[in-house]
Amino acid sequence: MTDTAAMPIAIVGVGKIARDQHIPAIAADDRFTLAATVSRSGGVEGVENFETVEDLLGARPDIPALSLCMPPLPRFAAATAALAAGRHVMLEKPPGATVAEVFKLDRLARARGVTLHATWHSRCADGVAAARAWLRDRQITRLRIDWREDVRKWHPGQDWIWQAGGLGVFDPGINALSIMTEILPHPLHLSGADLHFPENRETPIAADLRFAGPGGIDASAGFDWREEDGEVWEITVDTDAGELRLVDGGARLLIDGTEQPVEGPGEYPALYHRFAELIETAQSDVDPAPLIHVADAFMLGRRIVVEPFHD
Amino acid sequence: MTDTAAMPIAIVGVGKIARDQHIPAIAADDRFTLAATVSRSGGVEGVENFETVEDLLGARPDIPALSLCMPPLPRFAAATAALAAGRHVMLEKPPGATVAEVFKLDRLARARGVTLHATWHSRCADGVAAARAWLRDRQITRLRIDWREDVRKWHPGQDWIWQAGGLGVFDPGINALSIMTEILPHPLHLSGADLHFPENRETPIAADLRFAGPGGIDASAGFDWREEDGEVWEITVDTDAGELRLVDGGARLLIDGTEQPVEGPGEYPALYHRFAELIETAQSDVDPAPLIHVADAFMLGRRIVVEPFHD
Repeated sequence: MTDTAAMPIAIVGVGKIARDQHIPAIAADDRFTLAATVSRSGGVEGVENFETVEDLLGARPDIPALSLCMPPLPRFAAATAALAAGRHVMLEKPPGATVAEVFKLDRLARARGVTLHATWHSRCADGVAAARAWLRDRQITRLRIDWREDVRKWHPGQDWIWQAGGLGVFDPGINALSIMTEILPHPLHLSGADLHFPENRETPIAADLRFAGPGGIDASAGFDWREEDGEVWEITVDTDAGELRLVDGGARLLIDGTEQPVEGPGEYPALYHRFAELIETAQSDVDPAPLIHVADAFMLGRRIVVEPFHD
Repeated sequence: MTDTAAMPIAIVGVGKIARDQHIPAIAADDRFTLAATVSRSGGVEGVENFETVEDLLGARPDIPALSLCMPPLPRFAAATAALAAGRHVMLEKPPGATVAEVFKLDRLARARGVTLHATWHSRCADGVAAARAWLRDRQITRLRIDWREDVRKWHPGQDWIWQAGGLGVFDPGINALSIMTEILPHPLHLSGADLHFPENRETPIAADLRFAGPGGIDASAGFDWREEDGEVWEITVDTDAGELRLVDGGARLLIDGTEQPVEGPGEYPALYHRFAELIETAQSDVDPAPLIHVADAFMLGRRIVVEPFHD
């Protein structure tokens, strides 16, 4: 440990997102110190690694906090074990493979008196808080989300995203929905969806969503994983006071085309900052709203079969 | 009005379920009197009929309660209009086409200080309350739901059940899930599902669900709309103290094969009894849990294409 005041934390699931984001964010945060990992495919140089969460929980009662970075399907069992053992838990998004398990984890954390932080990293993008503040008192007439990227670039060889429960294009799309549900002063609900399934895959490669809300708002989203050239992660909101645009996944904010000054520590550093704050104040932060929109899209959506997808 | 003490109530959507269940239940309940209907295809002899909910709300401020019996897709707009106009609202199941709108209606009812009763009629089947009481302190090892019926008999010509958002076999299946979520002392969550879609339809004709829960419980459900001869609506629960069976959709209860004495007013009379009680005590009753399981099944489930279905 580099700092005796820092809280020991363990990372469970040492994959791409853990290496790219969580481990650097923890290293840069003096309130946490990476004390252990759980991984079957190799951990981190110089840090004790365990094969299973149960092994970690049994061997290291000195680690009060766990950050779960594995895919959504196995996350519930690990989160349940950690919360039941009285540890604070931070969840990568989405917070579960089902909506029901998010409510179960929330109840368990309350019963055990520990912190559960169901994170939505895109809500910590630098422009989001300012967008939320600007929209608070506006009359919103239209909202449009365009979230198009190249799946081959972002999810190379990740089979789980194509298997039932892996969410497909909703894996990035839920980031947009997490911003939408954060910045709008009044919630929307899904009114229709077209889901495009490659004929050889169990999850959609593209989705078109329509939402209903107050004042007959015209709200829609287009998610597409087949964009190779013009990747875009944008939300445009038309209001009675002009046009708001969040671009680059929420990192930049424009009002009527003029770039607004925004700043922040970055998404993952902000998440760990918030996790420390929640633990300190004995609170949880669990909002299933983005996952509910996704489940609603699967329930309500029309299914369109499109050409096969090969990695 | 036959009774000056009875509360005037309007029925919105005069289809099969309204004629078979709601109208007789209201006629038999001296706390309500049917004062108006909303229907585009004809109302009830001797009762004022309106073309739209808005017409009703404008013309009849003397009607404080509305019971919404139309299909789930148009229900949200009608419920919102009624709650916003300060009326108490009873919803047929499911309470919405999406999970998000159920939370929105719940918030609106609280904000307006009126009663929202999101009903699950199968929870009022005569055996359910006794099953819940019996299971309260048992260790449950296994739960099995078999819900098989002939769609041609129960939904003749109802196109909406086959359209995206119509839920398909989950329309009856959600009744079983409403009982399951009522009688179990600890909630389950979906761990996997196979959904069988006729190649010419947008909703499933059959579904196999698997659930996870405390103590490694073995829990599953089979819904099938292709059963012509041996229709069955049964829930079997194995416990440390023997086997509980709810049969005939919850109307009968057997413990270790022995029929238990149960009684009640019947499902729909019980719902109106409860609605009157909720209004009197200024409460709401909104539980989205069964609909969340359905949305989770669509999100997590594997999709299997089966032979076309023709009415």
